[in-house]
Amino acid sequence: MRKILLIGAGRSSSSLITYLLQKSFSENLHITIADVSIDLAKKILQNHENSIAITLDIFNNEERQKVIKNADIVISMLPAHLHLNVAKDCLAFGKNMVTASYISNEMSQLNDEAIKKNLIFMNEVGLDPGIDHMSAMKVIDSIREKGGKMLLFESFTGGLVAPESDDNLWNYKFTWNPRNVVLAGQGGAAKFLQEGNYKYIPYHKLFRRTEILNIEGHGKFEGYANRDSLKYKTVYGLNDILTLYRGTIRRVGYSRAWNVFVQLGMTDDSYTIEDSEHMSYRDFTNSFLAYNPHDSVELKLRHYLKIDQDDIIWEKLLEIDIFNPNKQVVLKNATPAQILEKILKDSWTLKEDDKDMIVMQHLFGYELNGKKHQIESSMVCIGDNQTYTAMAKTVGLPVAIAALKILNGEIKTPGVQIPISKEVYQPILKELEENGIVFNEKEASYFGYNPDVIMN
Amino acid sequence: MRKILLIGAGRSSSSLITYLLQKSFSENLHITIADVSIDLAKKILQNHENSIAITLDIFNNEERQKVIKNADIVISMLPAHLHLNVAKDCLAFGKNMVTASYISNEMSQLNDEAIKKNLIFMNEVGLDPGIDHMSAMKVIDSIREKGGKMLLFESFTGGLVAPESDDNLWNYKFTWNPRNVVLAGQGGAAKFLQEGNYKYIPYHKLFRRTEILNIEGHGKFEGYANRDSLKYKTVYGLNDILTLYRGTIRRVGYSRAWNVFVQLGMTDDSYTIEDSEHMSYRDFTNSFLAYNPHDSVELKLRHYLKIDQDDIIWEKLLEIDIFNPNKQVVLKNATPAQILEKILKDSWTLKEDDKDMIVMQHLFGYELNGKKHQIESSMVCIGDNQTYTAMAKTVGLPVAIAALKILNGEIKTPGVQIPISKEVYQPILKELEENGIVFNEKEASYFGYNPDVIMN
Repeated sequence: MRKILLIGAGRSSSSLITYLLQKSFSENLHITIADVSIDLAKKILQNHENSIAITLDIFNNEERQKVIKNADIVISMLPAHLHLNVAKDCLAFGKNMVTASYISNEMSQLNDEAIKKNLIFMNEVGLDPGIDHMSAMKVIDSIREKGGKMLLFESFTGGLVAPESDDNLWNYKFTWNPRNVVLAGQGGAAKFLQEGNYKYIPYHKLFRRTEILNIEGHGKFEGYANRDSLKYKTVYGLNDILTLYRGTIRRVGYSRAWNVFVQLGMTDDSYTIEDSEHMSYRDFTNSFLAYNPHDSVELKLRHYLKIDQDDIIWEKLLEIDIFNPNKQVVLKNATPAQILEKILKDSWTLKEDDKDMIVMQHLFGYELNGKKHQIESSMVCIGDNQTYTAMAKTVGLPVAIAALKILNGEIKTPGVQIPISKEVYQPILKELEENGIVFNEKEASYFGYNPDVIMN
Repeated sequence: MRKILLIGAGRSSSSLITYLLQKSFSENLHITIADVSIDLAKKILQNHENSIAITLDIFNNEERQKVIKNADIVISMLPAHLHLNVAKDCLAFGKNMVTASYISNEMSQLNDEAIKKNLIFMNEVGLDPGIDHMSAMKVIDSIREKGGKMLLFESFTGGLVAPESDDNLWNYKFTWNPRNVVLAGQGGAAKFLQEGNYKYIPYHKLFRRTEILNIEGHGKFEGYANRDSLKYKTVYGLNDILTLYRGTIRRVGYSRAWNVFVQLGMTDDSYTIEDSEHMSYRDFTNSFLAYNPHDSVELKLRHYLKIDQDDIIWEKLLEIDIFNPNKQVVLKNATPAQILEKILKDSWTLKEDDKDMIVMQHLFGYELNGKKHQIESSMVCIGDNQTYTAMAKTVGLPVAIAALKILNGEIKTPGVQIPISKEVYQPILKELEENGIVFNEKEASYFGYNPDVIMN
């Protein structure tokens, strides 16, 4: 039997493991799952005969090297900063390796040696990064093959709650790490390209500069700019492109309401609030408003942020209870962001039967024989339940598929890499389709940002 | 003759030096001015017989120790981080020392040794810190002496252009370091106390949360919150105070217009703009606005920030030329803040005959025998010309006066200190008054933030 070692079995490993177990008979696989805690793994494995779960301390060199030496291929689902020791062992013992994380500089530096030893270290082969790379490169390559010149590339991804479980005014629940949602967009201006012009959006304006997306069969969504749009430029060979924009998808209206937290200062993670422990949610809200002995916190906030009587934003704020004088923050020496996270968790935690949803859309603008064209490529994936979430499927399946294709020699070019070559993305995308992760491609009339006709 | 050594002769040393020279005959003083560059010093000294200017490399231990050993008292007007070597030499050779800088932790640690050797290391004795400490403590002590209980302390300082030289719509020119003006308020939320409640203002709201001040005989001003209001609490012994607020003074309307730069992202110093070198001022402004092939930069900005047709903010923006397509940024790899600084310098640099102005106001609220009272203490100082600026007078004179009072034994309590004891502030404030730096104290009816009567 061919031995697959999976190190790290977190929330996104359910679909990954199940896929490999299902293939284990036809493909003659044995799967070893190694983690510090193996409860979750055991639940998913259910004593499957072609598998075993073992406890592993990743920092114990002897233990780690023993299991890696014994494997035919290694999948690391550890946090990104822990891949390197695994990678070095893989080099030493001649094992291929797969991860869903961004390539670190240290990982890149192993490239020459990997090639010399004919090893594949496949990274960024989850959802984002991962499926975004593959589905984008498929269309970009096809445009280039027919002689087209890329003008525009916009790419949006979002983790949302599925429509059937969407029961709040924000149309949002936490389907992944809540802290990242609260801190989203911080750390510097968002930078992107529009028709050859570099554009910059400061954090405090980010959630008011959204773009509207239309995903056929699923309606309208909105996207706010990510900080890192420009790194796609070299990775995808889009050096002369005029428009390059990467964004995060939310339901329409979310960002405008989220902007209230940004404007108040509630997403700040850089200082702690005095005596947060003994504050109510209402006190917390009031700490960002000027003192006044007579006016209500409600009216002060409405006036400060100019929220009209009939603005739905107001109902959204009421829904999450930020004016409640009886709910306590409890957290000691907490930052505004930590307190906001706690408040939102009260309202935005998935219920037991709730399903999540992943939405991705790319827009490609190109010129061919003097004419401009546009392709829209969209994918929507809905989770089965709280184990086989859309997030687990879209992160775990491409990892599992990549590992098996490498093991089978279908993917064979060595080196430290990401899935942007046809050899890699073509078979993986095909298999993803068979597993329900389908991109819907559609020709559209080119709009871009330079329409030829405008009504004055 | 008694020998005063002044190390560092920058823009704020003119009044300091002139004061000491004028006293040199009656007080039997000889002044040595030591700096890396002595051109400015020579211009002010004009070969005065009781003075000499010498070149000094502050990092040359032998040179530095030689001049310090030979002095009776040392004034250090070096940048704050360079005081420590001077202080250690002063300890070694038994010399008193005066600076206008904030006490560093390292400086504080010399306190025990200074006391043991009966030496005075007087710090924070310029304008802000300096005159603010002295003028505030004078009133606070007088309130305490008559048995009053402090309820409120608000303190505002600003460096502005004098009314007679005020010829732009912003009513502002750079009278000190322009970079600090562009970056003002950044680095974290402003934090203060209002009626016992901690309040927080994020940077992007700071310039819309100003308070209006009235300074008798000079009209209305506005103040925006400083980040550090709370450090006054322990320094002034105001641990139970309900309201504590420290702010920066500008002419009314400045902050609302400055907010445009903040909202656009033009004050950001954390990243560089692509190809800034070849941009026009108009390109720079446009880089913060969404791309559109038809609409003007002007209309995009008006719409983005909701600036009405008749809003005076607009005339302010036109005045500083941010829409000019012919003026070039020139600066290479510049941050938004660096570019904005350059644009503003075109308009806000003092002309040869322009005068500056320093404005300071403290508000003290207290309770005495069950009744609430308020005292307003205000100071306005106008510069004579571009050498004897209001800034040079208000920073340099208290330093010079402190040095002479220490030399004469009028100030005698040893230790590393700031001018908050009566022994120190009383004689210095008196002498400042004789030199035209006068606080106008006035009883006012207490308002605070908790008026007893309100019209509903």
